[in-house]
Amino acid sequence: MIWTRKDLLGLEDLSAEEITLILDTAASLKEISERTVKKVPALRGKTVVMFFVEPSTRTRTSFELAAKRLSADTLSITASASSLQKGESLKDTVKNIEAMKVDALVIRHSSSGAPHMLAKALSPSIINAGDGSHEHPTQALLDIFTIREKKSKIKGLNVSLIGDIMHSRVARSNIWALTKLGANVTVCAPATLMPPGIEKLGIKVTTNLKEAIKGADVLNVLRIQMERQKDKFFPSIREYTMKFGVDLEKLKEAKKDVLIMHPGPINRGIELTPEVADGKYSVILEQVTNGIAVRMAVLFLLLGKKK
Amino acid sequence: MIWTRKDLLGLEDLSAEEITLILDTAASLKEISERTVKKVPALRGKTVVMFFVEPSTRTRTSFELAAKRLSADTLSITASASSLQKGESLKDTVKNIEAMKVDALVIRHSSSGAPHMLAKALSPSIINAGDGSHEHPTQALLDIFTIREKKSKIKGLNVSLIGDIMHSRVARSNIWALTKLGANVTVCAPATLMPPGIEKLGIKVTTNLKEAIKGADVLNVLRIQMERQKDKFFPSIREYTMKFGVDLEKLKEAKKDVLIMHPGPINRGIELTPEVADGKYSVILEQVTNGIAVRMAVLFLLLGKKK
Amino acid sequence: MIWTRKDLLGLEDLSAEEITLILDTAASLKEISERTVKKVPALRGKTVVMFFVEPSTRTRTSFELAAKRLSADTLSITASASSLQKGESLKDTVKNIEAMKVDALVIRHSSSGAPHMLAKALSPSIINAGDGSHEHPTQALLDIFTIREKKSKIKGLNVSLIGDIMHSRVARSNIWALTKLGANVTVCAPATLMPPGIEKLGIKVTTNLKEAIKGADVLNVLRIQMERQKDKFFPSIREYTMKFGVDLEKLKEAKKDVLIMHPGPINRGIELTPEVADGKYSVILEQVTNGIAVRMAVLFLLLGKKK
Repeated sequence: MIWTRKDLLGLEDLSAEEITLILDTAASLKEISERTVKKVPALRGKTVVMFFVEPSTRTRTSFELAAKRLSADTLSITASASSLQKGESLKDTVKNIEAMKVDALVIRHSSSGAPHMLAKALSPSIINAGDGSHEHPTQALLDIFTIREKKSKIKGLNVSLIGDIMHSRVARSNIWALTKLGANVTVCAPATLMPPGIEKLGIKVTTNLKEAIKGADVLNVLRIQMERQKDKFFPSIREYTMKFGVDLEKLKEAKKDVLIMHPGPINRGIELTPEVADGKYSVILEQVTNGIAVRMAVLFLLLGKKK
Repeated sequence: MIWTRKDLLGLEDLSAEEITLILDTAASLKEISERTVKKVPALRGKTVVMFFVEPSTRTRTSFELAAKRLSADTLSITASASSLQKGESLKDTVKNIEAMKVDALVIRHSSSGAPHMLAKALSPSIINAGDGSHEHPTQALLDIFTIREKKSKIKGLNVSLIGDIMHSRVARSNIWALTKLGANVTVCAPATLMPPGIEKLGIKVTTNLKEAIKGADVLNVLRIQMERQKDKFFPSIREYTMKFGVDLEKLKEAKKDVLIMHPGPINRGIELTPEVADGKYSVILEQVTNGIAVRMAVLFLLLGKKK
Repeated sequence: MIWTRKDLLGLEDLSAEEITLILDTAASLKEISERTVKKVPALRGKTVVMFFVEPSTRTRTSFELAAKRLSADTLSITASASSLQKGESLKDTVKNIEAMKVDALVIRHSSSGAPHMLAKALSPSIINAGDGSHEHPTQALLDIFTIREKKSKIKGLNVSLIGDIMHSRVARSNIWALTKLGANVTVCAPATLMPPGIEKLGIKVTTNLKEAIKGADVLNVLRIQMERQKDKFFPSIREYTMKFGVDLEKLKEAKKDVLIMHPGPINRGIELTPEVADGKYSVILEQVTNGIAVRMAVLFLLLGKKK
């Protein structure tokens, strides 16, 4: 298996073999971040631009450290600082970045499909760091990397995604990749936050948290976007927490070795109690560590052999 | 010809030989950005500070990449983040930056002459990245570099600058350098945006776009600053576009090999139609590419042999 | 004397030997910033994160250059850009940074004690870059480094700290370190800006500037925080300047070789007249230069031998 794609836009298009190649590459790169000298020269003289039209310190920082540990040069452009303010279109802005002979653009954008449009128009590698409610491929890859590291496999595992499935690009990317790799995926959300027809993706659908917990090897609990509350997708935060928040009591019915995951930042006391977030099942901080390895792998595969 | 100046403040003071030295140096450095490893050690261990009191992602990014490709360390300070907010004067702020033993300060400032004042007061090299409506030397240098690359000469060419000549530092720097190098310069603007007495610079002045287009080898179309509209320098955007906007129809009277240039970001449909901006005459994105080479040349000449 | 601490949280806890070790290390690293190639590979492959919850271009820049001159990778996170905006707690944010396997966190925070809390919870080295009105250890270290460089000793010198002693972390850190090293410290402030009981630290207390100036080897003049004026700690800026502002007239009673210091940025004409700030006694810009050396020393001692 050799990597041949120019871009990483989402996991929907990737084959199981391609996903596995990224995970295997990440596994071999992970130890670099444990070294005294956390740096290899693999991408020396490459330029990686972080272009974040939606703010995200966490994801941007992770990509930036991944690039630096491969010795790439990095440059960060945020929307508020960029020419977008002067009325320049997204495409004009990135055409200009391309003309500076950069090797990769890591893009976060509020519009689903923005990275795909850019990938067609531009020669540098485009890496989707989250587009609208569409995909967030490196987040799902780090989730799955963490599961594989802990459980030594993905095939046959029961993975439940819990929370705002409708608006979650993290859920969408996880569903695509987990099903390709042979996991049994369950999604659990209030009916108002469940996209209609999602069961066609070959996954189990429930509005009952108990069902999502029972027999699960992994609970990947999504972040509630408080700002959505104004649209009244659920009656109140309190009711959401009662029905869909994960606490130690509800976990009594879980498998003894269940993994608790969360893409962060956590609303403590809402989707997870602190006891669960910081408890023995939680691998949330390991996800963050693995995020660096996965993003190093993506940058390495896309740029490592590029002219 | 050996470079001897400490600073690059503007093109008014430079000789034709000095300008040519920068262009020749840029020509030899341009291919670095085409390499697999886009990096040479020329400025390793030098510190280049971007000090932008007016925002500009485009110019700052270009300088930052130029510095990184020469292996310099870079540091970016923006006005809103800086001590200027605490009431510190510009001079105190830069005196502090100087005391940190930096090698160059790339400065953008809304006041004409600010870089000159600093150059006298400070030992690091000062590079003017745009001061008020005075000069923007590296923009003009990249414009002229692009013309020379395409036309193999500057002497004898007919270059028309079109738009808000009065407020444009880009126009001013281009006029100084192009006339020194022997080009025939025409400026074209509404009468309200034409600085009185500008014909004394040895250039042709017109308010008729047709005249500026006819016989021109290069049309350098300037950006309309929408924010000036409140001062009513022209009756309406629509009228400006009718009289001074460049479209395919008006280009019918141009030379077959005319070059269309624009410093960006373009107001599409106002000063240029998309067909012109993206069409066969346009070298607008090549200007951006050449901006890196020209800025590498400036940094290299100023810092390359410095103690 | 070998450095054994993980963190630099304040000078209250440090022994005279530890403080001297930092000063000696800074003295040996200072010349790196004078070289043509201002860079040594000591911290190659280390990651130093600047985490500034309160803005400070000056201190952040100094730390960033110090890290780069030791070849460390740097990453800057500001509060407004960080997940703190999304309601994430400080501890969750830094736990995430820790999980990215960084080596040091340079933190500025408006709450006294925040760095101490983090140092206990985290494995990376924590460097306090100013916490509330508690401590600002590297500022005091660079002040003392500058004094030692000029006077060849600290023991027995008369050092007066002048200004808002009550709210000043700079004053507090200076008092701890100077008294440990054997200096005679005087603090001088309006009664309303003098913390009750401060004389118990073994220092002389006065509200009379003349007393603070007479016989002093060093006047370290603190910055007046204009924003405190709303709390009416002193009747008017004008009255403050008359009583506590240092001008040439008042300096007539000073020693002939007195040093004038200020942590910057200066309110010119308020705590110092321009003639004093830029005059022959002033070592204010040398403090800035020495800040790089002191911060290089701190980073080197904390990270140089770390796994």
